[in-house]
Amino acid sequence: MSQPVILFDPFPRTKDLILTAEDFARLENLGEVVAYPELKVPDAFIDEHLPEAVALIGQTAMPKERLDKAPKLRAILNVEGNFLPNVDYDECHRRNVHVLACAPAFAHAVAETALGFAIACARGIVEGDQKFRAGSEAYGGSGNQESFLLRGKTLGLIGCGNVGRALIPLLKAFGGELLVHDPWVHPRILKDLGLVPAGLNELLQRSQIVFVMAAATTENKKGLGAEHFSIMKKGAALILVGRSDVLDFDALLDAAQAGHLKAAIDVFPDEPMPADHRVRRTPNTILSAHRAGGIPETYKEIGRMAVDDLEMILRGLPPQRMQKALPETVARYRGKPVSGPGK
Amino acid sequence: MSQPVILFDPFPRTKDLILTAEDFARLENLGEVVAYPELKVPDAFIDEHLPEAVALIGQTAMPKERLDKAPKLRAILNVEGNFLPNVDYDECHRRNVHVLACAPAFAHAVAETALGFAIACARGIVEGDQKFRAGSEAYGGSGNQESFLLRGKTLGLIGCGNVGRALIPLLKAFGGELLVHDPWVHPRILKDLGLVPAGLNELLQRSQIVFVMAAATTENKKGLGAEHFSIMKKGAALILVGRSDVLDFDALLDAAQAGHLKAAIDVFPDEPMPADHRVRRTPNTILSAHRAGGIPETYKEIGRMAVDDLEMILRGLPPQRMQKALPETVARYRGKPVSGPGK
Amino acid sequence: MSQPVILFDPFPRTKDLILTAEDFARLENLGEVVAYPELKVPDAFIDEHLPEAVALIGQTAMPKERLDKAPKLRAILNVEGNFLPNVDYDECHRRNVHVLACAPAFAHAVAETALGFAIACARGIVEGDQKFRAGSEAYGGSGNQESFLLRGKTLGLIGCGNVGRALIPLLKAFGGELLVHDPWVHPRILKDLGLVPAGLNELLQRSQIVFVMAAATTENKKGLGAEHFSIMKKGAALILVGRSDVLDFDALLDAAQAGHLKAAIDVFPDEPMPADHRVRRTPNTILSAHRAGGIPETYKEIGRMAVDDLEMILRGLPPQRMQKALPETVARYRGKPVSGPGK
Amino acid sequence: MSQPVILFDPFPRTKDLILTAEDFARLENLGEVVAYPELKVPDAFIDEHLPEAVALIGQTAMPKERLDKAPKLRAILNVEGNFLPNVDYDECHRRNVHVLACAPAFAHAVAETALGFAIACARGIVEGDQKFRAGSEAYGGSGNQESFLLRGKTLGLIGCGNVGRALIPLLKAFGGELLVHDPWVHPRILKDLGLVPAGLNELLQRSQIVFVMAAATTENKKGLGAEHFSIMKKGAALILVGRSDVLDFDALLDAAQAGHLKAAIDVFPDEPMPADHRVRRTPNTILSAHRAGGIPETYKEIGRMAVDDLEMILRGLPPQRMQKALPETVARYRGKPVSGPGK
Repeated sequence: MSQPVILFDPFPRTKDLILTAEDFARLENLGEVVAYPELKVPDAFIDEHLPEAVALIGQTAMPKERLDKAPKLRAILNVEGNFLPNVDYDECHRRNVHVLACAPAFAHAVAETALGFAIACARGIVEGDQKFRAGSEAYGGSGNQESFLLRGKTLGLIGCGNVGRALIPLLKAFGGELLVHDPWVHPRILKDLGLVPAGLNELLQRSQIVFVMAAATTENKKGLGAEHFSIMKKGAALILVGRSDVLDFDALLDAAQAGHLKAAIDVFPDEPMPADHRVRRTPNTILSAHRAGGIPETYKEIGRMAVDDLEMILRGLPPQRMQKALPETVARYRGKPVSGPGK
Repeated sequence: MSQPVILFDPFPRTKDLILTAEDFARLENLGEVVAYPELKVPDAFIDEHLPEAVALIGQTAMPKERLDKAPKLRAILNVEGNFLPNVDYDECHRRNVHVLACAPAFAHAVAETALGFAIACARGIVEGDQKFRAGSEAYGGSGNQESFLLRGKTLGLIGCGNVGRALIPLLKAFGGELLVHDPWVHPRILKDLGLVPAGLNELLQRSQIVFVMAAATTENKKGLGAEHFSIMKKGAALILVGRSDVLDFDALLDAAQAGHLKAAIDVFPDEPMPADHRVRRTPNTILSAHRAGGIPETYKEIGRMAVDDLEMILRGLPPQRMQKALPETVARYRGKPVSGPGK
Repeated sequence: MSQPVILFDPFPRTKDLILTAEDFARLENLGEVVAYPELKVPDAFIDEHLPEAVALIGQTAMPKERLDKAPKLRAILNVEGNFLPNVDYDECHRRNVHVLACAPAFAHAVAETALGFAIACARGIVEGDQKFRAGSEAYGGSGNQESFLLRGKTLGLIGCGNVGRALIPLLKAFGGELLVHDPWVHPRILKDLGLVPAGLNELLQRSQIVFVMAAATTENKKGLGAEHFSIMKKGAALILVGRSDVLDFDALLDAAQAGHLKAAIDVFPDEPMPADHRVRRTPNTILSAHRAGGIPETYKEIGRMAVDDLEMILRGLPPQRMQKALPETVARYRGKPVSGPGK
Repeated sequence: MSQPVILFDPFPRTKDLILTAEDFARLENLGEVVAYPELKVPDAFIDEHLPEAVALIGQTAMPKERLDKAPKLRAILNVEGNFLPNVDYDECHRRNVHVLACAPAFAHAVAETALGFAIACARGIVEGDQKFRAGSEAYGGSGNQESFLLRGKTLGLIGCGNVGRALIPLLKAFGGELLVHDPWVHPRILKDLGLVPAGLNELLQRSQIVFVMAAATTENKKGLGAEHFSIMKKGAALILVGRSDVLDFDALLDAAQAGHLKAAIDVFPDEPMPADHRVRRTPNTILSAHRAGGIPETYKEIGRMAVDDLEMILRGLPPQRMQKALPETVARYRGKPVSGPGK
């Protein structure tokens, strides 16, 4: 009997980016890995191999016509991270073809950056270094008038998905109340996690640090604007590590410029940002070029997750590590795909 | 009957720096607070009030002759932070006069900074911001080649006193093994805290991040030098938040300059550092002007701790919050006092 | 427009058992709750209301013919706990009708009992009480020769589903290694939870206490027998809180009778057990009449979970609290339904 | 130069009870261990060896006259557990002779028993076993009308010393509020531990389970009586694992007899209790013959602690594991010594 075929189209990732030698060996142990020798895989190559494919690793377009050609298909494992509209998710659901995305692979990296940003805002770490190098440092308490502890403070999370759940244990160690706003999560789930469900305004008013980690959806575009920033405490920090679409970027810069907020920003309306954009000169900000998630360990985790879940699926068990496309929500995501390997 | 006298000589701190109105009211509730109207208290003023004093809040010189004049004295509460050689600690012990220092008040602030430094080193947060402002940022994975997660990593703590114990719960949230080297702490204490006691070399070789938090003592001056840094992993980070005396500062800069280590440095051989010192130009470092501990909340905690412990002592109970001068170790500390309020 | 119909057939539960007044009000807020005045609902009543039903709360038979009559149906919420073969799960999946079971409502109650059993075994609490009442108690250490601490011990979990995940945080507080054997869970998931994946034999050999919490499936019937008990440490404890089918009950009693193991048993091959069954006289056992899960708070949690998930589903979001019937595993469960309310 | 002498008088313990071979070897490594061949050591033997003794392991009488004969003495390590009035603690303090007791060795064992009692009370584990053996068991929910979860409940601790601090992490895993009443601990210490300081009445009124773990002192004799039990919630549980002197034992039995409380009792006004004492017939109680602390692992921990601390002391460092006799409190303890090895 022929081996099951695993069609491998990881664009925009590459095999070497996401798979260690060990994980690739595990993958080969699961079936015949069929890959095209170049990064961009021609449609014909995909079509040729669909009839025998049990799994497709990639963000490949999979409309119903293609699913019809793939009767053995059990799983589509997206190793880029976003659920794009190029897959017929309803048809996949009907056929019990799992469509999975690697977003959880980024969660710990983003969460650690978010915490690092939070402490850096609270303690002026970035600005303190700049001043020291410029010879204008102020020692001890005299350089710390605006510094504050995280310990015991009320902290707010907007969005409680992959990143939020990775961040929560890190924040719990500081002992304060954790307010969470996420309309997609039932309040009882949050309470069971030791969190306090909160309305958006209550969260903004009460939190010393607000972590904005919501995925971009059809529902939350520019959901945070000047009127929201204005009700935050003076000197509070906003940590933006999800998608910049969820807020009014200029209004955020205004709030930082005015000294009302500190802001750490990992995602931007355009990437790269124009060379002369005001953000580069805005005080009270920490700027990071969409670097919160994509570190070497993350990319290898993507491949590891995919192989782990494929192991389960081919054993007749449900996948457990990647994010499942759910019929209720998959069409509401509005993430932008990355444009190249390691982006 | 006259009220007990609490002699208040908080130099180099000030009353307003360390005591909230509420805590000062609590203090006044404990006895008559006797303070001199200026920061520098004359000897005669101290001597005048010693006969009725039950407590002395300050880093005032207290040789045996003065203790002899203070028969009612129960406690000396040092609100600066270091045990200086200007107190006859043995005589205090014999008389059961508690000598207490406020060092624990700084622990959470220093621990949070240490964690912020660690993540900033691991993720290039400071350098990333510099590049973004300069318009030379690299987006996504392309800017992250040297980035690493804390999660699951072996981390090392040199010194497990006040700061170490505040840092440990924060680090435990990352799930990796925590190696600790502290010759003053019994290994079984460390094991009971879920830590791994380690020799200095083992710790340096195995840890992805080394937190140097040892107090300066007669035993550890320049205890870390070039030979120690060389056995650390390439790309590992060293976080220096204790006293700079415990290491060879130039050798640390050499290791950072060579790209062998990343280093976050809060304490320096001279403060302020000379304007033209090489440290200001050394790459792979994060520089902080002794700002890890002395934030507004810390100073208020100093006063709160002192009042808390004085409440216990005057109720006939042992103090519980400040650090006790212990006969075995008090003479071995070599901390330098700060030179002014809020330093 | 007519309100959506929620068909309410909670047999063998009753409305008052599972729903507080507050939760019932929340349910009525979601749609028209249609219930039959007696516990046993006639088929005709079900059939009459299916055309308008958006949700069915119950363990009602739902073959394809009935699903065909229920075009608006979005969810079947089983408030008994087991996935019985009276539902066409594949057809439900195709139609995106969620089939949910209330098993998670029992998790905390069972986990707490399991821990209570474990400590009672480790410390002879049940036997100690018996002796004291009989006047034959031995004081202090003389009554404790076989007692042991949980702290720091290697503990084993067979099965890591709802109950296991509720038990893990309780066991982590004791600080020892937690071995887990669950062929349905990927080892990486276990490692991410801070657990050690283990083969069955390794787990049995190394654990001081073995918690048997596996659901009964087509794969594990009598999966534990005399040869397994014999490799456990002498004096170790086995805590049985899942289904008795997963082990050879007589062999377990033999091991307890021989003094090789201590055993706490909540589930039995027949319930009630015959009056003269040897289990009632077997030493080194703690006996509990299937009481681990079904406490008043659990029953109310069943109703709360169902309303919570129905709230989500009717808002167009996925359910989050009850256990989902998954196409891969739903047909493999072999739980027995309870026979009456509160059983 | 002669080796330092370690005078070994562990009565009522024995060497074999408290020291593993490994720990005894560590002890011998610290000095010449001088022991009398019988359990009861004659005064003359003690007096003979005091001049060279650096440490005394035992609960030996040490009035000032004997201390005067022991100029090299650095530590008295009490391996029984209570600070008896047969030592001149003030003189020891003046000489900086550490007087240490092994009470902390019992903490984890007592804490685990307390938790086991709490769950057993909450779930009727002991009574359930009795009924099952008698053939009168009620299955499932019908046997659980009075059962309750610990999860999320408010729990109260009276006394927050060694046992309390061992119990707290176990209780935190259940996620509810922890009220603590301990007049010897500053409220801020409790808050820093994540606990809620509470007055005695508030604690009794609000807690579902009350853990009585106070040491017997001059201040708390019969501090809990009928009026206190009456304000506890109906069906709440009281866990008594400290000393029975701290409450009115008969009033506690009355409250259990009346069905107002459940009680787990490890300590009694007389041990052994009279054969016909009503406690043996009181319902709603779990009885345990002072077995909470003295298990084999505890006894070995006593010896290990003593050797650990002696290692530190002979290295010129403060002891860290045993409980220090503090001048403020040592005279207030009223514990009764045990009367023989392993008691």
